[in-house]
This record gives sequence, structure tokens and C-alpha cells, in this order.
Amino acid sequence: MTEIEKLLEDVAAGAIAPDDALLKIKAQPYTDIGYAKVDLHRQARQGYTEVIYGEGKTVEQICGIISALVRAGQDRVLITRLEPEKAAQIEQAHPIHYDAQSRCAFTGQMKEPDGIGYVLVVTAGTSDIPVAEEAALTCEFFGSAVKRAYDMGVSGLHRTLDNLDLISGASVIIALAGMEGALVSVIGGLADCPVIAVPTSVGYGASFGGIAALLSMLNSCASGVSVVNIDNGFGAGYLANMINHMR
Amino acid sequence: MTEIEKLLEDVAAGAIAPDDALLKIKAQPYTDIGYAKVDLHRQARQGYTEVIYGEGKTVEQICGIISALVRAGQDRVLITRLEPEKAAQIEQAHPIHYDAQSRCAFTGQMKEPDGIGYVLVVTAGTSDIPVAEEAALTCEFFGSAVKRAYDMGVSGLHRTLDNLDLISGASVIIALAGMEGALVSVIGGLADCPVIAVPTSVGYGASFGGIAALLSMLNSCASGVSVVNIDNGFGAGYLANMINHMR
Amino acid sequence: MTEIEKLLEDVAAGAIAPDDALLKIKAQPYTDIGYAKVDLHRQARQGYTEVIYGEGKTVEQICGIISALVRAGQDRVLITRLEPEKAAQIEQAHPIHYDAQSRCAFTGQMKEPDGIGYVLVVTAGTSDIPVAEEAALTCEFFGSAVKRAYDMGVSGLHRTLDNLDLISGASVIIALAGMEGALVSVIGGLADCPVIAVPTSVGYGASFGGIAALLSMLNSCASGVSVVNIDNGFGAGYLANMINHMR
Amino acid sequence: MTEIEKLLEDVAAGAIAPDDALLKIKAQPYTDIGYAKVDLHRQARQGYTEVIYGEGKTVEQICGIISALVRAGQDRVLITRLEPEKAAQIEQAHPIHYDAQSRCAFTGQMKEPDGIGYVLVVTAGTSDIPVAEEAALTCEFFGSAVKRAYDMGVSGLHRTLDNLDLISGASVIIALAGMEGALVSVIGGLADCPVIAVPTSVGYGASFGGIAALLSMLNSCASGVSVVNIDNGFGAGYLANMINHMR
Amino acid sequence: MTEIEKLLEDVAAGAIAPDDALLKIKAQPYTDIGYAKVDLHRQARQGYTEVIYGEGKTVEQICGIISALVRAGQDRVLITRLEPEKAAQIEQAHPIHYDAQSRCAFTGQMKEPDGIGYVLVVTAGTSDIPVAEEAALTCEFFGSAVKRAYDMGVSGLHRTLDNLDLISGASVIIALAGMEGALVSVIGGLADCPVIAVPTSVGYGASFGGIAALLSMLNSCASGVSVVNIDNGFGAGYLANMINHMR
Amino acid sequence: MTEIEKLLEDVAAGAIAPDDALLKIKAQPYTDIGYAKVDLHRQARQGYTEVIYGEGKTVEQICGIISALVRAGQDRVLITRLEPEKAAQIEQAHPIHYDAQSRCAFTGQMKEPDGIGYVLVVTAGTSDIPVAEEAALTCEFFGSAVKRAYDMGVSGLHRTLDNLDLISGASVIIALAGMEGALVSVIGGLADCPVIAVPTSVGYGASFGGIAALLSMLNSCASGVSVVNIDNGFGAGYLANMINHMR
Amino acid sequence: MTEIEKLLEDVAAGAIAPDDALLKIKAQPYTDIGYAKVDLHRQARQGYTEVIYGEGKTVEQICGIISALVRAGQDRVLITRLEPEKAAQIEQAHPIHYDAQSRCAFTGQMKEPDGIGYVLVVTAGTSDIPVAEEAALTCEFFGSAVKRAYDMGVSGLHRTLDNLDLISGASVIIALAGMEGALVSVIGGLADCPVIAVPTSVGYGASFGGIAALLSMLNSCASGVSVVNIDNGFGAGYLANMINHMR
Amino acid sequence: MTEIEKLLEDVAAGAIAPDDALLKIKAQPYTDIGYAKVDLHRQARQGYTEVIYGEGKTVEQICGIISALVRAGQDRVLITRLEPEKAAQIEQAHPIHYDAQSRCAFTGQMKEPDGIGYVLVVTAGTSDIPVAEEAALTCEFFGSAVKRAYDMGVSGLHRTLDNLDLISGASVIIALAGMEGALVSVIGGLADCPVIAVPTSVGYGASFGGIAALLSMLNSCASGVSVVNIDNGFGAGYLANMINHMR
Repeated sequence: MTEIEKLLEDVAAGAIAPDDALLKIKAQPYTDIGYAKVDLHRQARQGYTEVIYGEGKTVEQICGIISALVRAGQDRVLITRLEPEKAAQIEQAHPIHYDAQSRCAFTGQMKEPDGIGYVLVVTAGTSDIPVAEEAALTCEFFGSAVKRAYDMGVSGLHRTLDNLDLISGASVIIALAGMEGALVSVIGGLADCPVIAVPTSVGYGASFGGIAALLSMLNSCASGVSVVNIDNGFGAGYLANMINHMR
Repeated sequence: MTEIEKLLEDVAAGAIAPDDALLKIKAQPYTDIGYAKVDLHRQARQGYTEVIYGEGKTVEQICGIISALVRAGQDRVLITRLEPEKAAQIEQAHPIHYDAQSRCAFTGQMKEPDGIGYVLVVTAGTSDIPVAEEAALTCEFFGSAVKRAYDMGVSGLHRTLDNLDLISGASVIIALAGMEGALVSVIGGLADCPVIAVPTSVGYGASFGGIAALLSMLNSCASGVSVVNIDNGFGAGYLANMINHMR
Repeated sequence: MTEIEKLLEDVAAGAIAPDDALLKIKAQPYTDIGYAKVDLHRQARQGYTEVIYGEGKTVEQICGIISALVRAGQDRVLITRLEPEKAAQIEQAHPIHYDAQSRCAFTGQMKEPDGIGYVLVVTAGTSDIPVAEEAALTCEFFGSAVKRAYDMGVSGLHRTLDNLDLISGASVIIALAGMEGALVSVIGGLADCPVIAVPTSVGYGASFGGIAALLSMLNSCASGVSVVNIDNGFGAGYLANMINHMR
Repeated sequence: MTEIEKLLEDVAAGAIAPDDALLKIKAQPYTDIGYAKVDLHRQARQGYTEVIYGEGKTVEQICGIISALVRAGQDRVLITRLEPEKAAQIEQAHPIHYDAQSRCAFTGQMKEPDGIGYVLVVTAGTSDIPVAEEAALTCEFFGSAVKRAYDMGVSGLHRTLDNLDLISGASVIIALAGMEGALVSVIGGLADCPVIAVPTSVGYGASFGGIAALLSMLNSCASGVSVVNIDNGFGAGYLANMINHMR
Repeated sequence: MTEIEKLLEDVAAGAIAPDDALLKIKAQPYTDIGYAKVDLHRQARQGYTEVIYGEGKTVEQICGIISALVRAGQDRVLITRLEPEKAAQIEQAHPIHYDAQSRCAFTGQMKEPDGIGYVLVVTAGTSDIPVAEEAALTCEFFGSAVKRAYDMGVSGLHRTLDNLDLISGASVIIALAGMEGALVSVIGGLADCPVIAVPTSVGYGASFGGIAALLSMLNSCASGVSVVNIDNGFGAGYLANMINHMR
Repeated sequence: MTEIEKLLEDVAAGAIAPDDALLKIKAQPYTDIGYAKVDLHRQARQGYTEVIYGEGKTVEQICGIISALVRAGQDRVLITRLEPEKAAQIEQAHPIHYDAQSRCAFTGQMKEPDGIGYVLVVTAGTSDIPVAEEAALTCEFFGSAVKRAYDMGVSGLHRTLDNLDLISGASVIIALAGMEGALVSVIGGLADCPVIAVPTSVGYGASFGGIAALLSMLNSCASGVSVVNIDNGFGAGYLANMINHMR
Repeated sequence: MTEIEKLLEDVAAGAIAPDDALLKIKAQPYTDIGYAKVDLHRQARQGYTEVIYGEGKTVEQICGIISALVRAGQDRVLITRLEPEKAAQIEQAHPIHYDAQSRCAFTGQMKEPDGIGYVLVVTAGTSDIPVAEEAALTCEFFGSAVKRAYDMGVSGLHRTLDNLDLISGASVIIALAGMEGALVSVIGGLADCPVIAVPTSVGYGASFGGIAALLSMLNSCASGVSVVNIDNGFGAGYLANMINHMR
Repeated sequence: MTEIEKLLEDVAAGAIAPDDALLKIKAQPYTDIGYAKVDLHRQARQGYTEVIYGEGKTVEQICGIISALVRAGQDRVLITRLEPEKAAQIEQAHPIHYDAQSRCAFTGQMKEPDGIGYVLVVTAGTSDIPVAEEAALTCEFFGSAVKRAYDMGVSGLHRTLDNLDLISGASVIIALAGMEGALVSVIGGLADCPVIAVPTSVGYGASFGGIAALLSMLNSCASGVSVVNIDNGFGAGYLANMINHMR
């Protein structure tokens, strides 16, 4: 029974007046703090707490949203794309854990892993690591165990052999690559689990800020592969964790 | 224990000669029929039978690959992107079921659904249906129950309300849209399961054959969304089924 | 009072049972005929009858939608992007008026103009006329008087002088151009009413199927200009009529 | 009777010599201050005062244009895209009101709203607010009442319900969004008034500085929607006000 | 003294009534035949007769425009982009000379060359010849002598030496090339006259229908080079002839 | 008789030894100063002195090239794209005239105008002036009289009327515009001389750094128009001067 | 001693008159047959006979060029991109061998392989074979032994192991792939010889006719890789053979 | 006999235990230092030592990789894309030679040239030199003699004549150009050896950061040409050296 069905029955039963019902439908799920409408029901509705995308928001705005969430009883908040300077300022108002490499912060405690298995995060090169860590930390924040295999390249036999067990054992794989993005097709050909491809803006010249990798991944001949936006480590981590909690 | 570990132990145990072991590693997993290397071990390796992408292959080539798979004991074969004329010719050599709308054919029987739940396939418009059916049939072929909700539009409240239950109950959602692809963000905002977005080439002018929808979906502000290639119904179906069988 | 407020009050008053109310919210506004969900409440909700986009729909589908609308009491239906062959077939089932140049058809009678003033439709060249007529006929169908000035070019003084009165007197102007689309800036500089720019796919080489005109129009230095999709005569006409009925 | 007809009659009547008439046609409507030709007749011709686009102009140039307009009797001047540093310098020469968020300044008083109704300005996110405020302030400067609904997202039911009244009551809606721009289609499906879509450069990766949102909006399946340039808040506001003053 | 100055003096002198003057300004220079506004004064105003762009016009429309021009006393008409089938039909109504390779036709006689020197038309390959001939014939029609050097390639020394005299002696050079368009830079480095570059759509793969050649030409390091649209032989010929008649 | 014919005759006549002849062919026309091959014969070969493109060259390199040219007897050198800081440093080694707005410098004296007529340089806006001045100064350096008409807009009648005489009287017109570039079509429709279009990178959003203006100009429906690279004021000025000296 | 040095010495020695020498320089290396300048010296100059690109040439033109080459003593001619219908017609005038799959024909005999080793031609899929055969046949025509490995996919271990010997033993590898082009990086990581990458137009949706593969290959992280145009099998074969004949 | 065959035989012969064999296959070829997997066997496998791409790596990471390579016995390491500041810091830990122009550094001694002939590196302009030097130094590091011809332009006869001997004598040519990239076609037409084309990001406006040159080179009508990524001097040098060592 959906929320709206429940409300209508309550109205019919006289348990709630129509105006109040309407108010409830409208007013409950978020609080409007002027520059943002903070979703307070997301945990209830989608099973995940609200996440704050830090880029383009001022320290004041971020603190305001954290406060609104805390007031609404959300005890754990993830903040992504957060510059170190901002993190330092926020830290003075809210106790956060900040990870400089992934530019992520969170309040509260990390969750115990409770997923089906582990999420494997692999990168083609060293420069893809910051985005990879954003993905990994997101997974961990939402309750997935994570294994990492960075700088795998696509140079074939040796590194592949070394990671075959890791690949075979994963519940979900997040594969990050810039430049030509070929790693995704190689991983996709070996894995028997969903592969989430993350093109990164690593590269130069005709990599066009990640377009080459993006197109490569969208055209991957491997099955079980899907793609998120360039540098979208959070999106990949969120989805991987979701799949890792299928029931 | 991986296959290669097993082989090495057998070699050490004298159970198999080194040359034979090498032969085994090399020769087993596919058969080379000249114009194609047919993967015979994919079912074992990835849990899914080989699929034939019909576009750009001649009737002779498709029949040859079916025969090779049948000889190797694969009893069910899915063929996608198959024109009616080709299907009619293939039918004379192999007993296939052909579905004209999705341009898919398969040999053998449909599998009983054995996934976690059902896959919901939604389209924004009527013209997206052929690609949607390719996705739906792929899901069904690999063992997922499918529910369909076509021509949903993004026009807001009414159609959304009607499909809320369908959306809430799904294990995975495949959302197809051409033009501006906004459906994906709307669905993604309501669903609490993975959403696989399929941009379609439906539209004109600045839809640029699906680019507008593709970009829209890649940039979706909704979490839990990932994207496959334009018109790639098969890829979406394959991945959805995989997620629907997470264990 | 919105529809939903009204319903809630009725529920509270016992005038309607909660289940029925929910049914009402869900079931009323459209009818699902399988391949399409026909919006039957649009006239009520937005003041305009449902329009059928003919491209990519079969004759059967179009006839089915017309029938559904007729059954719901909508006496006038506009069909756009309709090929002559399809029109001829539809004509056997439904009495339609078909205009070959604009590829538009409609059932019922044209409406008497009841707008603020007239909509002026101008084109840069002769080849833009079919899209212009789609715009013009859409305006007329929804109740706007239309004046036409075709093949105006941007060659300056003489043609401009001749049309100054037409331009000054218009309530809304729809300006269509392919190639470099400069007409829009010229018109926009002279007009004191909203100008809706329609890039057309007329041109060759670096016109890239309307991209040159589209970009030109988006960057127009004239104020009061907005743009619709390439070749989207209907969209421009619909919007122009809407503006011409502001109250 | 147009200005030129009037002049010709005066010439014929001997009321003005031909040379003087020519001079009048040429010299009146603007003044050439070297680096700019300031349009002094625009208010008369199009009903709106000249607006100064501040970007790429020096403080001296902006002050020069203000002076020329003031000399010509224009008592209210709007300046857009004005950096705070420039504003501070201009303030020393001319009494201006400066709004840092929208980067707009104006001389003289705000106009009393005298439009048909109100213009609703909605944004998908928090980062779209500066462009939204440019639009809103432009509307207000030219005499339209404005209501704001920021950070609406497209996440569906709840926020939509809350704003249904605002949407239904608006004369014109300006909808701003970056990323995938889906907000426009959602709003467009609910509104029965013109919707002016403003793609913003908010986003990253495959948003390509606003291209994804732009294409999405151009392809919107909703009727009554038109689009202006990326981040063109002024253009949207100018047009919205114009529509809100249709008579 | 411009036309408008003259008219104003006549009005002042009583030689012409104001209404008649206005009529004259407006009505004279073109005739409106519904689907086209035929410019009858172009010869007077710009020194060149009106040209008909045949693509996208029906036989009836083309014949109608020819008739209007003939009635207005224009004895020579050039028609470009004219398909052979249309030419055959037009021939029955008007005596035209048709050249199948360039797809150009003209009425009346070719003009005697009266330019400064000759226009040299060079192509990189054999496939560029049709566009080259459109350029050449346009030059000849308007009175320029033309020399041709086709299939020059850019392969260096030998062919270049052979054509050095031709290149040095030309008044204007039209250089056509598809693929990489390098011919233009080679010619531009040797010539001491204006070079008009015409990218052609000849090529495949990454030539993208002429984009590679277009970009190459726009970036040419040679001085004295300018570019027209892809495949725009007419535009190049028209401009070359204009330069060849500088006085 | 070309240089090479002359040399061969000298060789045959014994006036020069074959080795020396070869040396002459090779060694004469430029001097190799390591980082650059300075063309010393260009004035002889093409009638124009060598020009130094300053961007990406160090002060040392620019001074070195000036010295090489001076040693070879070239008394006047034009340097384009020269930053003020570099100009200040160069000034200490060579007497140059530097113009900050156009970022151009030159040694020696300006040349007396000796062309057919004057070159008219027009811009759409104020921000186009720097590129316009690069074009104008290039014309003047090579001997053309220049007239300027800046910030013309495309807003129609009044400004156009004011400049009709200037336009009609020009030998060549250089038209510069960013944003939508419509000015070129307006000018092209009025002028009866060659129009060289220069797209500028002025604009924002969908102007894409000059692409919108570039495409607009390439597609101009006006005849006699050709286009140079974005912001290429020098190229336009060089070509305009060349045309203005046709003989 | 280059040709020109030799000629100059002959002139000095009186062995040849200057005019004759000039004639020789100019006239020798090609013959002008109107629509084409056939390079007769290419074999001498570059060691390879002239090749005819068949696309866009008429049967008459191709026959004419063959005749000119035969007359000049070239006994073997390769013709690429030749449609079967044209081949059938040419066959009546010249004895050619035609291969329908690669669309190549040649006159004379195949050359005995005389290169360093063999060229390995590998494709990712079955649909890449026609372009691969164009490459292979070009290699063979010019004297290289060729080995083929088609439909290799990038699915990892098994197929790779099977072809390791082939890859290790090759002198040059031509790797063809459409879609995401990842094969090139995999091969490039294993090979220790030059790899020539050929993107093919195989694929759909976001493969954009080969752009995805092209970008992927240009960005390949593997060393020793270079790229030719989309579908340019001939170019790859020509270069591979050249490298295979390094001395 | 490949490594894996050898290992299997050893296992069968009891010379090595299966677990150790597996360990060997996996563990040997690289060492994992956390942020990077350093390939220690590359010299053995491909005949070339590992190269460090410096961009995006910290000084610590680069030093770590150098140390790992040194520990593994690799005595010479090339580092590309290394900023001067980083080089200065690295120099304190490792004795490196740093070349500021090419931004390359290397440890150990330069190798004696032992290739077939020399690699010719040519550039179109002065600004291409840094990328050219990256290519040249890479060649020299791996054992190829290099000749340089910079700032060649494409201005035709004179500079070409001067370099004909250099061009004819080369084993491989690396041709670098920005802007329109025409140099490659000119060189390609004269050379009888492989030409590796390197588009550079030199240029402005419609050069689009090297895209114009890239497309031009991909479409080059000259045979024997292949292309690497924009500004990829290292890739070109590596490949050129490889070809120059063909045996």
C-alpha cells in the first residue's frame, strides 16, 4: 500500500482531515531552506540517505543542508566533490571525516558491509584513482565491501591473470578509464557480473576530456556493461552498491 | 580454483601432458569457422549462452554459427537484429521463433522466469516500442519475468500515479526514450532499484539520432541510473537480467 | 481548488470512497490502447485538444487514437507529419481535411480566430514554406488569425520596408530560416512582439541539416527571440497561438 | 502611419527640407560614441529601454553609454553581466543598484508590476540560481511580478504536488536547468502557459557546458516550450515580460 | 547620390507625391509571385542579374521565376543545382543551355570575357570536377575568362612546376579539394593573387562530408586565402568574377 | 620567364656552374636561423613583405627574425598577435610602433594608400573591435585606405540607412561579428563588392567560441561573401588589401 | 644525386638544351588525360606503381587511366573501391582479377612475397572482414606475405592465447575494429612490432560511423600504434608493406 | 617456445611445482607499488624499457617508479611530459638529464644509434618544436639517429627543394603540424618511406586545439602516412624508432 493510498483511507476513516492530508502530502518530504529543498524522506522512499553534491555550493549552503538533515534525524550524510578548503571550514561546524584524494566527506560512522559480496573497483591508470576512490568510498558509505585493483592497463596477459580471481569473485565491477577506455571491454569479456563503466577525463589531445573513453565504453562489445557520466565516481558507486544489495 | 590452476595441477600430477594442456587451454573455448570464432564456453564461463548479432551477417554465416553452437551442445540460441527476410530463410534450416517487432529470433524454448523479481520495461513513446521489445525478449530469454509500460511520456502526474506500483515493485527498470530522454530522470527519481537507460534514435532535428537523449541520460540527476548505447535494447536486457539474478 | 483538493474533500465528505478516489485520479485522464496512452483530459487540463504526431505511427495506430479521442468527446483532432499515402488511407475511416504542403490533417471544423491579434509567419526562402505552413495551420487550428510573408531573404532595405507594417502589427511572429538563419535577427531587431525562431533543415554543406541556423538563432542579439527544434513548425505554431491568447 | 511615411509627407508639405529629412532618418535614433552606437529610440520603437550587456565592456565604456542614455532622457537603465569590481567603480559615477547574485545593476527605480499575471521562475538545482535571478530581475525591471521556485529537481511527485498551484497560476514560466534539463519537460507537461527554457552551464563531463541541457530542451516533447541560449537569463526574462504584457 | 536621396528631392520638388514615393521605394525592386519574391533590381543595384538556385524548387516554380525575370527585361538567367530531369522539362518552356556535369543552365548568350585577367580553377582530384565546373561556368556567365587545371594533387614538385605559370598569371584562383584540402595551402603559398577555397564533400570516413577540408582551409597558413561553403562552386565563381572585375 | 628558366639558361650559357645554380635555387629565398626559416624573397615573389605572427614566439625569436629581415633589406615589418609586455621588450632592440588594441606592431613607416578605393571595416558589436583593428591596420600597412563602422548591429533600418553610402562606396568590405554573425548576410545583401567575413569568438553559451558565427557566415545566402578563420583579422586585412590592389 | 642535379649537369655539359631540360622536368612524370593526371613516374620515384581509387570514377575514366599506365610500361595496376558492376564492365576491356569481398581488382600477376616477414591482419569482428581484405590484398599485391586472424574480439584470455604466436611472429600488424576499437590496445600491449590501426564504420548508435573506434585508437595507451582513416584498408596495407620492406 | 609453454614443460618435468608456476606467471612481470603496477618485463617482452608518462603523477610517484625499475635492473628510464619544477625535485633523488624544451628527462646514457638509417623530424612551424623535440629525443633514447628540419611551412618550391635530399634519405619521417596540417600531404607525396603524422594543438579559432590538423592528416591523399594523437611526440618517436629497427 503506497503512502497516498494510506492517506486516502485515513481521510475516509476520518482519521485525518482533507486539508491536513493535502498538507501532509505536500509538506512532509522535504524542507525548503531557500536555496535548496532538502529531501528528508529519501531514506524512507528509496532506502538511501540524501547526498550533498558539494561543487558549486558555498560552505554556508552545505552547512545549512547538513543541519536540516540532522534536524530531520538523518544521522549519516555523504558530501561529494568537496574542496579541501571548504572541508576545513565545514569541519568547524560539523564533525566530518574528509578524504582528500576522493574529495569526499561524511558525517557519522561508516556502515558495516551487508551486501551480497564485494564491489571491485579497477582503474586503467594511476590518474584515474581520485574518481575511483569517490566510487569506492560511496560504496563503503552505503554498506558494500570494496576491493581495489588500480593501474591495470590493458596490456594483456600478465596483469589480467593476476586479477582473474578478483574479477571472477566480484558481485559488481566498477571499471574506470580515461584515454581509450579499452579496459572496460577487456574486463567485460572476463566478468560474469554487472560492469559499471566510468569514463574519466584523463588523457590529452583527441581524448577530448573523456569523450573518447565515453564513446568507447558505450560501444563496448562486452555484455553486461553500462556507463555513467564522465568522472561520475559517485553515480557508479551508488549504483554498484544498489546492485550489491539486490534481494 | 580457476580452470588454469586445475590444469597446472593435472600437469604436475601427470594426469595430462604439457602439450595437451596447452592445447586444451587454446582449443577448447571456441571453434573457428573461418568468418567467425564461435564462443562455445561462454555459458560455462559467464553463465549465459552465446548470442548472435544478426546485423551485417549473411544467412549462411548465421546458420553456420547456429550449427556450431548446436554441435557444441548449446540448445538455446538468441539472434538479435534479424531482418524478416533473413529470418524466413534461416527458418528453413533451423526451427526458430521469430518476433518481427523486436527483430529477434531464438531456437529452443523460452526459459521459466527464475529471477529475483520482474524487470519493468518502460518507454516514453510509441516509436520506442521495437527497441523496448528487444530488451524485453532478451530478459525473458535469459529467465526474467517482464512487465511493460509503454508510451508513458513525461507529462506528469496522472500517468506517473498510475504506474507508481509497477515502478516500486520492480527489481530492475529499463527506461527507453528518444527525443529529450527526460523519462529516465523522472523514473529514476521515483524508483529504488537500478534503472538502465536506453536512448533511442526516435526524434528529428536536434535529437541528432539519439545524441540528445544519450546526453540527457548520462547527465541524469537521478541516482541509480546507468546508460547503454543508442537503440541497444539487447544490452539493456542482458544487464537487467543479470542484475535480476544477483545472488 | 485543484482537482486533487476537490477529491480529498469528497472523500472526507463520504461522497466518494478512497478506493474510488484513487481510481479516479489514476484512470480518468487517458485511455490505454496498448501502443499508446491517449490523453483525454488535455483539453480540460491545458485548454488544448490532444494532437497526433503522425511520423512513425501506422495508419492503424493513428485511426485507433482518433477513435479513442472521438469516443471521449473530442470533436477536433490535429494530425501532423502525415504522409499523403497514410492520409489517403485514414480518409476512408475518418473524415479528415488534408493539406499536402504542410503534411497536416485535421478532423472537424477550423476554429474561428479569437486571439489578441494575428500571428505573422515569415520565411527566409521558398524551401522553408512546408514547415511554415505546418506552423500556420497549427495556429489556425487552435484559433489564431495568420498572415504570411514568404521568401523574405535578409537582403535588406527593400523587402524589409515592404513588410514593416506587417511586422509592426503582429502579435507574435514565427520566423523560419535554414542556411544561416540571419532572418531572425533582422526581424527581431524590428519587431516589438515575441519572435519564435524555427531553424529549418534547408541548406547544404556546413548548414549541417539545420545546425547552422539553430546556433545562429540561439545566439541572436535581438531581444524577445526564442527557438524551437529544427523543422518544428507545430511547436512554433502551438506556442504562438498560446501567446496570442494570453489574457 | 510609420515614421518614414510621416517624414515623406512633411517633405512634400514643405515642412521639412529633404536634406533635413534624410538627416533626421539617419541621425535621430542613436548616438555614435565611437566604440558604441547607443540606441536612443528603442523605447519608442519597441517599448523597452536600451539594456547594456556589461561583459567585455570597460567601466569607461559602460559609463559612457549610461551618460548617453541619460542625456537622451532615458531614466532607467539595466546593466547585465556586470562584475562586482566594475559595479563598484561605476557606482562612483552613477547611482546604481547592484545585485551580486545575478550580476545585474540598474539605475532609477524598479517599475510597478503591470503585467497580466506573474512570471514563475523555476530552477532544477541550487547552482542555477544566479542565472535565474538574472531572469527574474529582468522581468521585474520591465514591470512583471515574479514568483520563484528554486531547486525543484525532477524527482517527481512530492515537489511537483507542492508547486502545482504555482505552475497552474503563472502567466509565463521560465524554467532553468543544467545537466539533463529534464525539468522543462516535466513543467511543460503540467503548465498551460508558455514555458521559456534556459539551459544552464551547470554540470560536468558529458553536460558539455550546457549542450546536454540545450539539446534536451529543444527536443522536449511538451508543447508550448521554446528555448534561449545557454545561461541567457536576460533573454528569457525579457521575453517572459513581453509575453506577460500582451494586449 | 543614393536612390533614397534622389526620391526625397523629387518629393520636395513636387515631382513626385509622398505616397507615390513610398510606393516606389517599396514596390519596384521585386515582384511577389507567391512562393518567391523575385528581385528585379539586382542587376541595377549590384551589377549582377538574379540567379536561381534550383535545388528544392519545382519545375513550375523555376519557370515562374524565369518568366518574371524575362518580363522585367532581364535577358540572361543562370540556374544552378538543376537536375537533368528538371532541365529537360524547363527546356520545353524556355530556351536554356544545360551543362550536365556542373548541373547549371542558363538562358541567353554567354558574355564576352571583360575581366582583368583569367580565373584559374584548380582541383585536387577528379571527383571535385563537378563543383569546379559550377564555379567555372558561373565565372564565364558573368564575364570572366577561365583556365582549368584539374586533378593536381598535392604530391609536390612535378605537377607544381608544370602549373607554376598558370598560377602566377591568374587574377584569381579557385581551389577545390575534398579529403584533407591541403591543395589550398600549397597553391596559396605560390600564388600572389586572391585564392578562394572550396571544400568539397569528396572523401570518406573522417572527411565527414567535407568538414576535414573545410577546417583545413580555414586554418591555411597561406595568406590571401578565404573560404566558401562546402561544395559551393557558385559562390566561389561569383566572388572570383567580382574580384576579376575590380576597378 | 620564371626564375628557374632563367637559371637554366645561365647554366647552358656557362654563366653559372650547375652546382652554383642548384645552390642558388636552394639557398636564396630564405635564411635558416634555427628556430625559423625566414622568407626573404616573399616581397619579390608575392609582392608583400614577410609578416611575423607573434603568438607562441619568444621575444628573442621575434627579434631574431626582424634582424634577419632587416639584414636582407626589408625595411618594413608587420608583427601581429603581440602582447604588450613583449612589445615593450622588443622596442628596446628595434624601433617599432605598437598598437595595443589590435596587438599589432610594425617597423618602418606606414605606406601611402595606393589601392583602388577604400576598405570598409564593419563590426556587429563593441567587443569585435580588437580583431577589426588588426584587420584595419594590416590593410593600412600594405597600402589601403580604411574606413571604419563599428557596433553596427543587425537591428535594421536606421543604422543601415546611415551606412548605406559607406557600404556602396567601398572597394572591399571586411565584416566582423561574433554571436550569430547575421551582420554578414545583411551587409552582403546591400554591397556590390567582395565581402570578407570574419567570425569572432565574442559571445557565450551556444556561440561555442565563434562556431555559431562561422557556420552562419559560411551559409550566408548573400553572394560575394567568403570567410576566414575565427578572429583572423590579419588574414582578412591581407586579402582585402590584395583585392583592393587588383590590376 | 637527385634527378634535378643530374639534369643541371647535363645542361652544363651541353648534353641537353635548357628548354629541353625544363620540358623534361615538367613533362615527364605524368600524362594528362583531361579528367586525370596519371602519375607515370611513381614507381621510379617511390618504388610503387600507381594505384587507382575506383570510387567516384566512371568505368571510362578507370579504363583510360589503366591504358595510360599500360602505355607507360606499368605492367601491374591495383584498383580499389571498385563496385562489382564496374568490375564486370572493365573486365571486357582489360584482363583484371576481381575480388568481390575486398572490392579490389588488379591487372598482371601477384608479386612473390619478398618482405622481412609477414603482415598479420586481425579483425575484432566478422563485419570488419571486407576492409581487412582490402588491406591484406594490398599487402600481397606489393609483395608481402599475409596471415589473417579474423573475429578476435577482445574477450580476453582464450582467443588471445591462441594467437600469441601469430602476434609475436609478425613484422607488422594491421588491426581493424569498429564499435569501441579496444582490440588495438590489447594487440598493441602484446606486440613488439608496429601496429597499424584501422577504425571501421561497423557499429550503430554512438559508434557514429567509426568515430568511437577512431578516437579510441588515437588514444590507445599502447606504444607502437598509429592510425589511418576510417575504413582505409588500402592505406593500412600500403604502409604495412612499406614497413615490411624496410632495409 | 613461449614463456607459458616453457613453464608447463617445467611443471611436467617436476622442475617446478604447479603453485610456484602459477605464482611465476602472475608475479614476475611487474611490481605493484600501490598507485602503479610497474612493468619490469617490458624490455624482455617488447625489447623496450618502460617509459614514465610524467603528467598527472606526483614527484613521489615518479621517484617510486624509477626506484622500482632500477631495483629490477633497468638502467635507463625515459620520463616524458615532465614539468621543470618536478624535474628539479626528482634530480635530487635520481641523476637525470632534463631537456626543458621537450619536457623529457632520462636516467643513464643515451644509446648509440643502431637503426637502419635516420629518422627525419620535420615541423610546419616554430611553435611545433617542443612536440618535435619530444619525438626526436624519444628516437635518440631508443637508438635512432635523428635529423631535424623545422619551420618548413608548405609554401612550396624553395623550402621543398632544399630538403629533398633529407626527405629522400630518411628511413622514417615524423611530420608535425598544427593549423591545417597540410605539410603531411606534401611530405607524403615526396617521401618513399613511412611518414608518421603528429597533429599539434598549435593554432587558434577553427583549429579547435588540433582537430583540424588531425582530420587533415587522417584524410591525407598521400600513401604511407599514419597518424598518432594530437601532440603525441613520444608515440611518434617510439613508433619511428621501432620501424627504424625493423630486421
